[in-house]
Amino acid sequence: MSEMIQHGRLLARGVARHLLGHDIVTLEEFVPARGLRVDLIGLTPKGEIWVVECKSCRADFMQDSKWQGYLEWCDRFFWAVDADFPVDLLPDDSGLILSDPYDAEILRMAPETPLAPARRRKLTQMFARHAAQRLHLLRDPDARRGFSVSL
Amino acid sequence: MSEMIQHGRLLARGVARHLLGHDIVTLEEFVPARGLRVDLIGLTPKGEIWVVECKSCRADFMQDSKWQGYLEWCDRFFWAVDADFPVDLLPDDSGLILSDPYDAEILRMAPETPLAPARRRKLTQMFARHAAQRLHLLRDPDARRGFSVSL
Repeated sequence: MSEMIQHGRLLARGVARHLLGHDIVTLEEFVPARGLRVDLIGLTPKGEIWVVECKSCRADFMQDSKWQGYLEWCDRFFWAVDADFPVDLLPDDSGLILSDPYDAEILRMAPETPLAPARRRKLTQMFARHAAQRLHLLRDPDARRGFSVSL
Repeated sequence: MSEMIQHGRLLARGVARHLLGHDIVTLEEFVPARGLRVDLIGLTPKGEIWVVECKSCRADFMQDSKWQGYLEWCDRFFWAVDADFPVDLLPDDSGLILSDPYDAEILRMAPETPLAPARRRKLTQMFARHAAQRLHLLRDPDARRGFSVSL
């Protein structure tokens, strides 16, 4: 694993811990649609879907040509970066989270762009199936046997 | 853990493996409402909610005074038992799954009693939040720190 990816994952860990403290559950590496993979997807107690992209450095952000595609798959979109990141690079109409491997803080709340009900329903179901499948394979690795679950 | 509970959990494991083979993800020990705890809740690719109660023996079934309360929390309700269980005890308008610790087989499909859309939405969201929280605490036990997530 490259150092940049490893750094991004540690930022995601801090964000996930912080969001759990706000009663928001998360999944890492979620695929809302073919060709898209978000770093962290969150589900709030009210059923809002949040997406958080974690950027370890300027190069990590500049290489990302897909992030605008994530906007239509969430109610709120955030960047998560560490204290050394040049935040002026980031669009200021997204949310902003300051993160380290152990915790995080929401510096700027993302504006709300509500999902259509049918998409929210579909995404929530995908989230549920994805989480349960990963959990199942952790608690009973022998359940795998080549099954592939659709999300 | 009593032998009866341990036996029930092994039956649940076999059922969960079998359902995963049918692309149905599951969670163990799910609480749909205060005072109710189902052995296994499943979520199908179409978004149907299944509940499976695992009974290890006659006494296990006879002690269960709550199962009728589960019917209003699922689209389909099943019993799961092993080959030694006296199946004539079970109501024949429920589904029936023959299980062992390694696999299972659906002997009788449960009739469908569709959930109201609002309840299905709420249950799917609870399922998602429950699964993600359990998964999070497995992959990052230090995330716990006394947080309690509402479902």
